[in-house]
Amino acid sequence: MSPFTGSAPRTETWHHLTYTVDTRGVATVTLARPEKLNALTFGAYADLRDLLAELSRERAVRALVLTGAGRGFCSGGDVDEIIGATLAMDTAQLLDFNRMTGQVVRAVREAPFPVIAAVHGVAAGAGAVLALAADFRVADPSARFAFLFTRVGLSGGDMGAAYLLPRVVGLGHATRLLMLGDAVRAPEAERIGLISELTDEGRADAAALALARRLADGPALAHAQTKALLTAELDMPLAAAVELDAATQALLMNGEDYAEFHAAFTGKRPPRWQGR
Amino acid sequence: MSPFTGSAPRTETWHHLTYTVDTRGVATVTLARPEKLNALTFGAYADLRDLLAELSRERAVRALVLTGAGRGFCSGGDVDEIIGATLAMDTAQLLDFNRMTGQVVRAVREAPFPVIAAVHGVAAGAGAVLALAADFRVADPSARFAFLFTRVGLSGGDMGAAYLLPRVVGLGHATRLLMLGDAVRAPEAERIGLISELTDEGRADAAALALARRLADGPALAHAQTKALLTAELDMPLAAAVELDAATQALLMNGEDYAEFHAAFTGKRPPRWQGR
Amino acid sequence: MSPFTGSAPRTETWHHLTYTVDTRGVATVTLARPEKLNALTFGAYADLRDLLAELSRERAVRALVLTGAGRGFCSGGDVDEIIGATLAMDTAQLLDFNRMTGQVVRAVREAPFPVIAAVHGVAAGAGAVLALAADFRVADPSARFAFLFTRVGLSGGDMGAAYLLPRVVGLGHATRLLMLGDAVRAPEAERIGLISELTDEGRADAAALALARRLADGPALAHAQTKALLTAELDMPLAAAVELDAATQALLMNGEDYAEFHAAFTGKRPPRWQGR
Repeated sequence: MSPFTGSAPRTETWHHLTYTVDTRGVATVTLARPEKLNALTFGAYADLRDLLAELSRERAVRALVLTGAGRGFCSGGDVDEIIGATLAMDTAQLLDFNRMTGQVVRAVREAPFPVIAAVHGVAAGAGAVLALAADFRVADPSARFAFLFTRVGLSGGDMGAAYLLPRVVGLGHATRLLMLGDAVRAPEAERIGLISELTDEGRADAAALALARRLADGPALAHAQTKALLTAELDMPLAAAVELDAATQALLMNGEDYAEFHAAFTGKRPPRWQGR
Repeated sequence: MSPFTGSAPRTETWHHLTYTVDTRGVATVTLARPEKLNALTFGAYADLRDLLAELSRERAVRALVLTGAGRGFCSGGDVDEIIGATLAMDTAQLLDFNRMTGQVVRAVREAPFPVIAAVHGVAAGAGAVLALAADFRVADPSARFAFLFTRVGLSGGDMGAAYLLPRVVGLGHATRLLMLGDAVRAPEAERIGLISELTDEGRADAAALALARRLADGPALAHAQTKALLTAELDMPLAAAVELDAATQALLMNGEDYAEFHAAFTGKRPPRWQGR
Repeated sequence: MSPFTGSAPRTETWHHLTYTVDTRGVATVTLARPEKLNALTFGAYADLRDLLAELSRERAVRALVLTGAGRGFCSGGDVDEIIGATLAMDTAQLLDFNRMTGQVVRAVREAPFPVIAAVHGVAAGAGAVLALAADFRVADPSARFAFLFTRVGLSGGDMGAAYLLPRVVGLGHATRLLMLGDAVRAPEAERIGLISELTDEGRADAAALALARRLADGPALAHAQTKALLTAELDMPLAAAVELDAATQALLMNGEDYAEFHAAFTGKRPPRWQGR
């Protein structure tokens, strides 16, 4: 728990997605509009932004699984509810909307816990970028990623995709995927480094949950700092990065888990991680 | 067409390369010195620099294919005409020459249209970097890339290669390729992400042209912005990148192609892209 | 030899590692604590830092092989001598230690000669990062890399690993490796680009030495500048990178090796590289 709780209350009910958290600190966010392949609405984007902000403040969550109900992960922004609506918006409204989608991606990258996307079936458009922004993409063989923004007349660089994808799969593959919007099926996605773990058919959710539990049960503060450094050091020169690493390790060497590792190692027993 | 045309006339004749453009906005630039494996001369570099600058101003071109006549793509700077001549140059002249080659690479990266290198046979030295700077490398099995600058006593970091190659294939492969100058044949090039599309033998030109036509016939402004964001966001932090994405999408959501997509989707017909 | 030698004498004896240099400028640094799988002590880190600083000043070395004696490359920081000792340190001491380890990585990246890690068996923790910081990783099938910092309760971003690893294998693989600390065996390491050259069993040292000799016997200044540009341009925008390339090539075009290449090519004989 964070000691820095202000006046703002927790949100009790999330209307545009399903949220649960277990006693071990593993949260699950489910995009739950299966009849529309979990197409995102304005409300779903806003809920993702706000939920991640709340969870990042409270620190009750040590790992988060992001998954989709039904036949696929997420088909992206809803054609009727979003594309249709944006055609009637003025410039300020268009900026508000597109900033919000970017804020979701930043919130995923900056959350102080690992985010694991469990992908089966389609991960298209904004759905592909949500998966891309996660720390892990656990996918089954039915997974297919499609950054299909150009197919609707927009830039392939949406929600940070033109920043993130070259850093995950290299500039050559990223150019091809973002410019053409072609679907990438699981074997290619694994080959180019877009998938973290390929599971058996229908096992993406279970494997993502197992990974989340492993992370939450382990030295969770160490995991959170690893993520923070990976995120920050993409944008830092080497000299600054090693200075940040030094400060971070000096900090964690004062932490409980580091002492616990040594005690466990010396005592020839498994460590009991506290996550701090 | 760009409305911002000044006093400078178009160049009617390009002496050091072959240039054509079709009615659909697909340009083809052919390195046309087959008896020398299209070895580059001072004039060829200067023509590439100037042609790309002219095309970037006019916006008549929506996609560009860069290819080589004869047995290979490009064997790099001509040993006699360039290496020999540079040995007699003073420092300012050497800087002028090396800045010009870098300007060609910047012009390829900054051109407001996708550039597709059609590679068969050798792509060596400056030829390898020209292909590397392109957005797509469409290659047939005869293609071999060799960043052989150290073989002539120069730095492997020539024309931005030490910037681009690690971002395409990762720092490990890039170090090996640039430091040693060994040839990379098509199977390895595909495996490490250096090739965008591997074609059948002798089909690189045809496949590159087909890709260029697909891009030119599609939402060309969306393609151009995708390229611009991919290029720019290599050098930007995540927070700035998502802000750039938001502004770009807000802009394109006011464009004709985005509305056309929605009308076509609603009307259950294919979109008629205008490229704006 | 560098003309800029000051008052500081050479260190005659290195107590915490083995150092040799042959007449062709090939240095070998051996982590020589085989009974502990070459676990690093405070003295070993300090010797690596200081030796690389001395070698970088003197320029007698044209290529350096880093290897481990006995059954593996390096098992990382010694659990007893380092982890135990750091538990008793105050904050300033912890910063000193962690800055030192980062200085070793910077010294490897900034050394004016290529560094080749010869990896067999385990390369774990700091050992994995030492290999990662090298320009080449020549490994045999017994090699296994494990960035196991989170296993001791620390950040996976140690010694620049969160900076370097995404730039070598991409952000997806890097997140998985640094967050989980799982071992990466040679086939996977090769597949994701972590290995530069995979040798036959037991041949990593010999292959690394052969590569070092090839580099030292070649245009060594060109190799050194290639490394310097690869290192610097990870942290530079494209426009600055091509300007740095232009200045570097103009410099090297005044050098002896470039003229020698042309003379050799014209004379149809192999070049006699001077390394300057």
